Amino acid sequence: MIFTSEFINLVRENSEVNHNECNLFTYKPNYRNMKKIFCSIILLPAVAAFSVHAQQTQLTLKPVDPYRMTPGMVEIMDPEVEIIKPGATDRDPPSDAIVLFDGKDINTEWEDTRGNPSKWIVKDGTLISVKGSGFIQTKRKFSSIQLHIEWKTPSEVTGESQGRGNSGVFLQERYEVQVLDSYNNRTYRHGQAASIYKQFPPLVNASRGPGEWQTYDIIYTAPTFNKDSITYFTPPRVTVLHNGVLVQNNVSLSGPTDYTKIPQAFIKAHGPGSLQLQDHGNPVAFRNIWIREL
Amino acid sequence: MIFTSEFINLVRENSEVNHNECNLFTYKPNYRNMKKIFCSIILLPAVAAFSVHAQQTQLTLKPVDPYRMTPGMVEIMDPEVEIIKPGATDRDPPSDAIVLFDGKDINTEWEDTRGNPSKWIVKDGTLISVKGSGFIQTKRKFSSIQLHIEWKTPSEVTGESQGRGNSGVFLQERYEVQVLDSYNNRTYRHGQAASIYKQFPPLVNASRGPGEWQTYDIIYTAPTFNKDSITYFTPPRVTVLHNGVLVQNNVSLSGPTDYTKIPQAFIKAHGPGSLQLQDHGNPVAFRNIWIREL
Amino acid sequence: MIFTSEFINLVRENSEVNHNECNLFTYKPNYRNMKKIFCSIILLPAVAAFSVHAQQTQLTLKPVDPYRMTPGMVEIMDPEVEIIKPGATDRDPPSDAIVLFDGKDINTEWEDTRGNPSKWIVKDGTLISVKGSGFIQTKRKFSSIQLHIEWKTPSEVTGESQGRGNSGVFLQERYEVQVLDSYNNRTYRHGQAASIYKQFPPLVNASRGPGEWQTYDIIYTAPTFNKDSITYFTPPRVTVLHNGVLVQNNVSLSGPTDYTKIPQAFIKAHGPGSLQLQDHGNPVAFRNIWIREL
Amino acid sequence: MIFTSEFINLVRENSEVNHNECNLFTYKPNYRNMKKIFCSIILLPAVAAFSVHAQQTQLTLKPVDPYRMTPGMVEIMDPEVEIIKPGATDRDPPSDAIVLFDGKDINTEWEDTRGNPSKWIVKDGTLISVKGSGFIQTKRKFSSIQLHIEWKTPSEVTGESQGRGNSGVFLQERYEVQVLDSYNNRTYRHGQAASIYKQFPPLVNASRGPGEWQTYDIIYTAPTFNKDSITYFTPPRVTVLHNGVLVQNNVSLSGPTDYTKIPQAFIKAHGPGSLQLQDHGNPVAFRNIWIREL
Repeated sequence: MIFTSEFINLVRENSEVNHNECNLFTYKPNYRNMKKIFCSIILLPAVAAFSVHAQQTQLTLKPVDPYRMTPGMVEIMDPEVEIIKPGATDRDPPSDAIVLFDGKDINTEWEDTRGNPSKWIVKDGTLISVKGSGFIQTKRKFSSIQLHIEWKTPSEVTGESQGRGNSGVFLQERYEVQVLDSYNNRTYRHGQAASIYKQFPPLVNASRGPGEWQTYDIIYTAPTFNKDSITYFTPPRVTVLHNGVLVQNNVSLSGPTDYTKIPQAFIKAHGPGSLQLQDHGNPVAFRNIWIREL
Repeated sequence: MIFTSEFINLVRENSEVNHNECNLFTYKPNYRNMKKIFCSIILLPAVAAFSVHAQQTQLTLKPVDPYRMTPGMVEIMDPEVEIIKPGATDRDPPSDAIVLFDGKDINTEWEDTRGNPSKWIVKDGTLISVKGSGFIQTKRKFSSIQLHIEWKTPSEVTGESQGRGNSGVFLQERYEVQVLDSYNNRTYRHGQAASIYKQFPPLVNASRGPGEWQTYDIIYTAPTFNKDSITYFTPPRVTVLHNGVLVQNNVSLSGPTDYTKIPQAFIKAHGPGSLQLQDHGNPVAFRNIWIREL
Repeated sequence: MIFTSEFINLVRENSEVNHNECNLFTYKPNYRNMKKIFCSIILLPAVAAFSVHAQQTQLTLKPVDPYRMTPGMVEIMDPEVEIIKPGATDRDPPSDAIVLFDGKDINTEWEDTRGNPSKWIVKDGTLISVKGSGFIQTKRKFSSIQLHIEWKTPSEVTGESQGRGNSGVFLQERYEVQVLDSYNNRTYRHGQAASIYKQFPPLVNASRGPGEWQTYDIIYTAPTFNKDSITYFTPPRVTVLHNGVLVQNNVSLSGPTDYTKIPQAFIKAHGPGSLQLQDHGNPVAFRNIWIREL
Repeated sequence: MIFTSEFINLVRENSEVNHNECNLFTYKPNYRNMKKIFCSIILLPAVAAFSVHAQQTQLTLKPVDPYRMTPGMVEIMDPEVEIIKPGATDRDPPSDAIVLFDGKDINTEWEDTRGNPSKWIVKDGTLISVKGSGFIQTKRKFSSIQLHIEWKTPSEVTGESQGRGNSGVFLQERYEVQVLDSYNNRTYRHGQAASIYKQFPPLVNASRGPGEWQTYDIIYTAPTFNKDSITYFTPPRVTVLHNGVLVQNNVSLSGPTDYTKIPQAFIKAHGPGSLQLQDHGNPVAFRNIWIREL
């Protein structure tokens, strides 16, 4: 089979693939250049439409390499992927996110765990835990989600171990990603910031210091349950980026996170649940909380 | 510490663990006998206090709530989780990252796919693809990684579909996360920005416009292979955040990404591989590339 | 049981848990406050014996080995695991299985794909595919299942490749585990017996010969779907034992199995589906079909 | 486009697909008959070889349905899948299995955990645990495996709970699938037969009675480790069929199985490990043990 330069130019002009995609003369079969390696294939659509010769080209190809297709055969055009608008920065909520706290209002999206207005305070655009006021939780209930949340422990350091800057992000009311001032503050591995409480320590301690804003970007997959309703068919899975660093890599939980019990002991089938933030007695601040349902 | 037979009998009689569970006289500490190895532990509460009171405390407790432990029992203190320093912002490289491009130098970390110096250019702190110069790849080889990379398609829009702002991030030289100007530029679903090329469309199109910087935060798990060396024991898995939005959620790849072939047709066992950036003929710019080995 | 403030203070002073961890006066039992809910537990050892000795026992134990518990603390007694009766042999249906074919009746559990009585025949206790009669499918619909099925290709060998002893087991009407006489009968890798059709070849060819009974033990996990309803949130997963040999090890499917299309091209969200057996023109026989819903 | 009956017959005669596969006149688009639905596609290879008309057919098709390919394009022929010989029954070892106990010899494959000859006895073709003799383990070390093992607890029932017919199958020396007489013998959920000891109860209790042979078919995936060497990158995963019934469905372990410790507390990176059988003081018998490396 001979490709005259005229023929090649014809193909190029009629092809969506530009010249760089198809440098037949420098083609090197050992390369791992995934797209380039198949450049000659783009000849096919054009060829097919122009001459019987092209068809013979295809027929000639087939026994040589039965897996070659025209590109169009493996292209899926419809429906168009949903378009959203990302945030101005990656921290900012994209257009399809539910903004749970925008720096002003707490009462629209949150309540305490009895369904009453929360006593946490909003100050300087942040949401601050108030000692003794209890957890707050979203009025909305969620299953699998992507969550962005920012938090800051007090710049004035008091207490140690679990007593310093302690709060928590509870997924579906049951699964805690620990919030703690873990900067120069040793505690048990499974209990420091970004741990899945008492189950998985973070891969690394990527904490910023007290008084500095920190972020969690969390990908959470809700569990499904066996028929017995007290064991998981598929366990909850969690990925966490702490300040941009991967610290939980798709871990599978054994059950709800708990202070002293083994997690398996109190699994119970559940549906969607609130996102909760813990009052652990320290004035931890939160801001820029948004969530996307998966 | 002495175990009198009277004492042992006392413990046995008060314990739910039967004799077979606890043959103290044949106990061999080097064994990996998972259950037997802890037989003596039931003695410990008693022993610790050297009194019958302690043992009775245990016995009294059990019927009340068998799963309750003291918090310390489920705390793991050592070793300390490795401390790293996160970036100044979440976009910046943490202290344990390998910086692959810092705005200045290309030759230390990168080469072309023949092992020669790359012809891509560094300009205004960005790394720009040069038409016809081929892929670039890292000199280092990687397996499972977290990758942060920023890219920008030309602000002057030319071409359409795959012809506009096309490049690609190839994981382990084989698995492409597509780079494309997908802002007001329809192409096939599996071929737009943030797709796993020809395998998984992004969950949403979170593209910024031409001339704007965009980010990928990628979590990649390298595959393992069956004994036949041409199928996966565990497939490659990829999670991608595009401009902070989850667009690939731990997807399992069917094989290398390819233009026209079915992915399964050319799986081959491989070890660590370079990170590659594609020259697809368009002057796509990159910056702030860093990677963490998992 | 009365908690005097003196007592509480005593406990607090002897406990590693700080005051914030244990605000007994604001304790609200309906809360899902995972840590707080167990605060009182540290009181229990003391309370249970109503003496300071018990509490001290706890304190003494901790430094010795913080992870040691009594066995009972990690035992979960209730509820009892459901008891079923396994089959007389491992091939036979256990008591909780739905018997889909017991050697006699086809009409109770099966129909053709139009909902009419199937034209397949029952002979010598086996269910035989009739050329031109079409697929049969269960009237019941299933999601995730364990399936046992036995099949036999004709002892008189005719045809070759896909033309010899071809049938198929379709999970949820979409995902085919291939049935074929693959004994001394080469075909494409993804199309032989025990392949996930056109997606995964079996790990080994464990075929028995024509005229011999063969078994599939299949563990199937139904997919879940993204909001777009045309991609998987979690893909279908399949494990297959062929004649007792593991041939599909928890593989993740890319989409429905198809003759020529790429699987991703026609994913559509679906609920429970029938189990189908394929009429591919060859008189393949089946027997001893049972299923357990997971 | 017109299909004359002559044309169709021509195609049929030249196609590997038999008539049932391609009943064009009864084609019903709503059917979910995965292969049949694409019957018309088989026209293509024949057509292509015979006339230019065929090619036009393809060209006509393309805009209508861009995903249609010829079957051969998605067929992978080479290399041939490895052929093995399955056992005479599904219980019997296939040709690629390592037979660890064949009813006669214990010394070739097994030793005690100190590397000395085991004191377990071989009697009537079975391998019997001897009280006080300790675990036995394979001399070979394994990673991911398929394991078949049969076991029998004493027909004379003595003891209760963990004291009746207790033994265990330890994967990689660390992960125990419990062996116990759990027939009319209640114990803690995570400790009964077919549990992953102290981590996962079986989905159902599929026990046969004392004195009856029972089987485990186990699929085990070895873990991989994070760089810290004390946490899992991918956890060990286990699937178990007990007497043919799925009782563990690809569960992810939290760490080694242990009597009293929480599993995470003593994860340590490990390579291949022996298969171990536990001496727990009861004369449990084993037979027909074979293993396949994955």
